[in-house]
Amino acid sequence: MVGSTFQRVAIVGVGLLGGSVALGLRRRNPDVHVVGIGRRESSLDTAMELGIIDSSSLHVSEGIRGCDLVILATPVGTFEMLLEQMAGSLEKGALVTDVGSTKREVVETAERILGARGPFVGSHPMAGSEKTGPENAREDLLDGATCIVTPGKKTPAKLTLRTQNLWTGLGMKVVTMSPAEHDQAVGDVSHLPHLLSCLLMVLPDDEHLSLGATGFADMTRLAAGEETMWRDIFLSNRLALLDSVEQMLTRLNAVRSDLEANEPDLPEKLMELLTEARRRKLDQSE
Amino acid sequence: MVGSTFQRVAIVGVGLLGGSVALGLRRRNPDVHVVGIGRRESSLDTAMELGIIDSSSLHVSEGIRGCDLVILATPVGTFEMLLEQMAGSLEKGALVTDVGSTKREVVETAERILGARGPFVGSHPMAGSEKTGPENAREDLLDGATCIVTPGKKTPAKLTLRTQNLWTGLGMKVVTMSPAEHDQAVGDVSHLPHLLSCLLMVLPDDEHLSLGATGFADMTRLAAGEETMWRDIFLSNRLALLDSVEQMLTRLNAVRSDLEANEPDLPEKLMELLTEARRRKLDQSE
Repeated sequence: MVGSTFQRVAIVGVGLLGGSVALGLRRRNPDVHVVGIGRRESSLDTAMELGIIDSSSLHVSEGIRGCDLVILATPVGTFEMLLEQMAGSLEKGALVTDVGSTKREVVETAERILGARGPFVGSHPMAGSEKTGPENAREDLLDGATCIVTPGKKTPAKLTLRTQNLWTGLGMKVVTMSPAEHDQAVGDVSHLPHLLSCLLMVLPDDEHLSLGATGFADMTRLAAGEETMWRDIFLSNRLALLDSVEQMLTRLNAVRSDLEANEPDLPEKLMELLTEARRRKLDQSE
Repeated sequence: MVGSTFQRVAIVGVGLLGGSVALGLRRRNPDVHVVGIGRRESSLDTAMELGIIDSSSLHVSEGIRGCDLVILATPVGTFEMLLEQMAGSLEKGALVTDVGSTKREVVETAERILGARGPFVGSHPMAGSEKTGPENAREDLLDGATCIVTPGKKTPAKLTLRTQNLWTGLGMKVVTMSPAEHDQAVGDVSHLPHLLSCLLMVLPDDEHLSLGATGFADMTRLAAGEETMWRDIFLSNRLALLDSVEQMLTRLNAVRSDLEANEPDLPEKLMELLTEARRRKLDQSE
């Protein structure tokens, strides 16, 4: 464990995800010291009472002192300010990473403030829950889930490896790709689905909504997501989301034309789409 | 029970839904005689062994003899042929209904063949399962689910009432509307969601598919649906589905423009959509 284990870790934002990371680190190494950093004393007190953190601080530059790992677990919109606050106080050799849902903008900002050769390496542990807050944090929340690690072009391989080891140590499967590829992938498999879920929810007439069966319930489950969080995700991933939306528009427009034209090959065209979608879904479920 | 109870019932197509209707009728009235009508002797034998039907027939005109209720539970594409086969052999006073997923085309066809004043009244019990076949039929499959009954303009009120009573007797909530309104409603809450689920499933690159979390799994669950069934539903509800697709295109295009323009009011516009979608979803879940 020596070498890949962190001794003193700062978690900025001790909510569901930050708290679960802290508990996971503790499970792996009972001797780790976790500093919780936040703006509200009451929620840091809660995290302390729950045994999630060992000490707390309301000030980033103070809280990160002596830490060999700093994890940003606040909304991505706060990262720029937080990175500026920590810029002068980071320990030499400390690793800085995050748990944000978008990466291109985050990595650009971090590289501008902390440098392109580290110590920041972006991470996106793809785990969560409809619950929030440190009281719902669980040491096994990340178990078996995927974490995408997104080194920049100049990130030293050693730093990338340390970041990968952090997440595999917490029981995650790690996938590594560029920040831009990450954003495109999550645009397609997360942000566009969320957007469509919302649009499906607002489209039907009021009196028809209750006619939706389990399929409609599945397709609109995401629409219950917390709106400010998703607004920030959409804004932070604007360009990749725009690209995903344009791809969907192209495909949906093609279906519209086919349905309108009603040519003899319409059954065949619909069958092609339905068959391909089913094949992909069943392949994936195996 | 007298008056609203049927004595001899023909089920054309004894699959999951037809079989569940038969079992539900039997639970309500143990004395009912159920005739299973189908093309394959082996599956009728299975239904017989399972106690779903009392007798069977490979011929519609023969099977419906003496029946006071005939239920079409085959794919909607087969209805025209079946209605023509039964036209000369229906008992006086018999009610004919169906369990098809689209209604305008079905009701038009039935009225043309059997008459606009009955004895056909369209029904759409909105229940199902990813399972198929009589071996998965359950007497409680319809319990608590919604059934849409779609009388035509000239359908006698008595006949509509008998149809409504059939489904409430099976434990369903009944909603009554015109065939056209039905098709628009299910276009919005069922067929468009299915189409989007398929498009979402075929959009991402192969190597990004595995990055989808539970949200993506929810949004693509429908894509596993049986393709010929959904092709036929899309074809049968082509015009209403086209309308639903056009409404979705309008909304998605608006989001596209907003994302591209990136004006200062973009956060507000996104917030509006996300808030409205969440409010509707939470209102509905209550």
